[in-house]
Amino acid sequence: MAQDSVFGEIPGNPPGTTYADREAVKRAGLQRHLQGGISGHPAQGADAIIVSGGYVDDRDYGDRIIYTGQGGRATATKPAKDQELSGNNLALAISGQTGLPVRVIRGAGGDAAFSPKAGYRYDGLFVVVQQWSEIGVEGKLVQRYVLEASDGGASWETSGATSSTRPVGRAAPSRSSSVVQRIVRNSVITQWVKDLYSGTCQICRTQLQTPVGFYSEGAHIRALGAPHDGPDTVDNVLCLCPNDHVLFDKGALYIADEQVFRAADDSLVGDLLVSKDHGIDWSHAAYHREHFARAH
Amino acid sequence: MAQDSVFGEIPGNPPGTTYADREAVKRAGLQRHLQGGISGHPAQGADAIIVSGGYVDDRDYGDRIIYTGQGGRATATKPAKDQELSGNNLALAISGQTGLPVRVIRGAGGDAAFSPKAGYRYDGLFVVVQQWSEIGVEGKLVQRYVLEASDGGASWETSGATSSTRPVGRAAPSRSSSVVQRIVRNSVITQWVKDLYSGTCQICRTQLQTPVGFYSEGAHIRALGAPHDGPDTVDNVLCLCPNDHVLFDKGALYIADEQVFRAADDSLVGDLLVSKDHGIDWSHAAYHREHFARAH
Repeated sequence: MAQDSVFGEIPGNPPGTTYADREAVKRAGLQRHLQGGISGHPAQGADAIIVSGGYVDDRDYGDRIIYTGQGGRATATKPAKDQELSGNNLALAISGQTGLPVRVIRGAGGDAAFSPKAGYRYDGLFVVVQQWSEIGVEGKLVQRYVLEASDGGASWETSGATSSTRPVGRAAPSRSSSVVQRIVRNSVITQWVKDLYSGTCQICRTQLQTPVGFYSEGAHIRALGAPHDGPDTVDNVLCLCPNDHVLFDKGALYIADEQVFRAADDSLVGDLLVSKDHGIDWSHAAYHREHFARAH
Repeated sequence: MAQDSVFGEIPGNPPGTTYADREAVKRAGLQRHLQGGISGHPAQGADAIIVSGGYVDDRDYGDRIIYTGQGGRATATKPAKDQELSGNNLALAISGQTGLPVRVIRGAGGDAAFSPKAGYRYDGLFVVVQQWSEIGVEGKLVQRYVLEASDGGASWETSGATSSTRPVGRAAPSRSSSVVQRIVRNSVITQWVKDLYSGTCQICRTQLQTPVGFYSEGAHIRALGAPHDGPDTVDNVLCLCPNDHVLFDKGALYIADEQVFRAADDSLVGDLLVSKDHGIDWSHAAYHREHFARAH
């Protein structure tokens, strides 16, 4: 029976601790395998990853890591094939959904700016902030992830809690018993777009009426930050309800010819609501379509 | 014409700066009025509040403040009346919607644990994390707010940006140009409830299908933290889609007799989906109904 994943810090192994080899990493309880980057379980999430080079498009910015999934690589005897969103690749994506922290262990094979000279080093907790798939250098699908350094991440108690046993909980909970699942940011740019549409969702036309006015969210079409590098400009932002914002960001929906489609089967959802004063740059929608809404 | 609000830090006035009186606070540009606690505009939000005692149920926990709106107090010649969610009270609620930081200036009249001995002191940026209304000590409606110390809050550029002029934006934005509009936390407790319903929204039955599984959010019925002090237990959590989570948290919806109603007109939305294994404590729903879904 698979061992339960242990999320968060492992006592006695603070950030900065070094290990001679993968055996030592495994012995310390930081990562459960001797080979392969991702440690986890598809139902629970990924508790740790090894960052030690591996894919030509991977990037390491210190507090931000662009990572690639496992499998599908061409070998001497087999051609490359699509990476599946299953097994450990799915586990890492699940972590993006739950917000659970991922231990990052850097190896000597990675970016010289951040890698240890030899062996491995535990570099703290990160969270998966994005996940998408795209055609890689071998012409096949690869699973990609962005992880960002977490501000402390909770030590999520897993013993017994992921079973069907009813968890006890706390009458007066501390902040440290929870993790961030989703964070929505606002800015002058997103606020302008939301005001333009009076909080009307450009996909489903809903206006969430609260006592304080209409609630909506600004969604960047081409994602901000490396590697997507979408601009923070009004031509790259949609006014969406929270539900469609989640679906769009996770690639369940895409836009083509000012219409909205479901990625799972390319079925039509409807026309995108577009104001004559908005000036959307449709190349951003093409980027999103290509990178976030690949065939599932 | 009303002056544009200036959000965030005022240069030359770092946290800790003291002021002899309200005149000095106004001269420094921290708060625009000589009387009254809230400074702001209903369309833009509240840029500053004075915390100096004022309402018997107000609380000051240092990094968390429970505050009351303006108006409606009984005077020598007039009886008490309901506080409206308009003017400065609406402005402070709008700040809860946008995530814009609020400057907090403490005066000598507040809680001895955190107030200056005399005069006023600027104590940094806070964000409005909750807003609700309830019957106060004078038997009339009062507007209540919870503010939490912000981790730095952006200096949101307001000049020209809140007009209809198309804002320029940035190709490579820095994190500091945005503020947190909404944050969703996950925990063992909320995850258990979401798993119980397989991500099905207990209000609208939707399952948000993403490539990684169903996305849903755990919503505490009776809010966590002072002054509501709801427990972090599964009997106090609903599995909701993001849209209904927003509506429920903001008091646009309420629950009575296992049915869901719109607070604006008490119209029926439908039955709440309830699993036989959930064990909801309906007293939490009664608390939420009383405090968050008052007549609007």
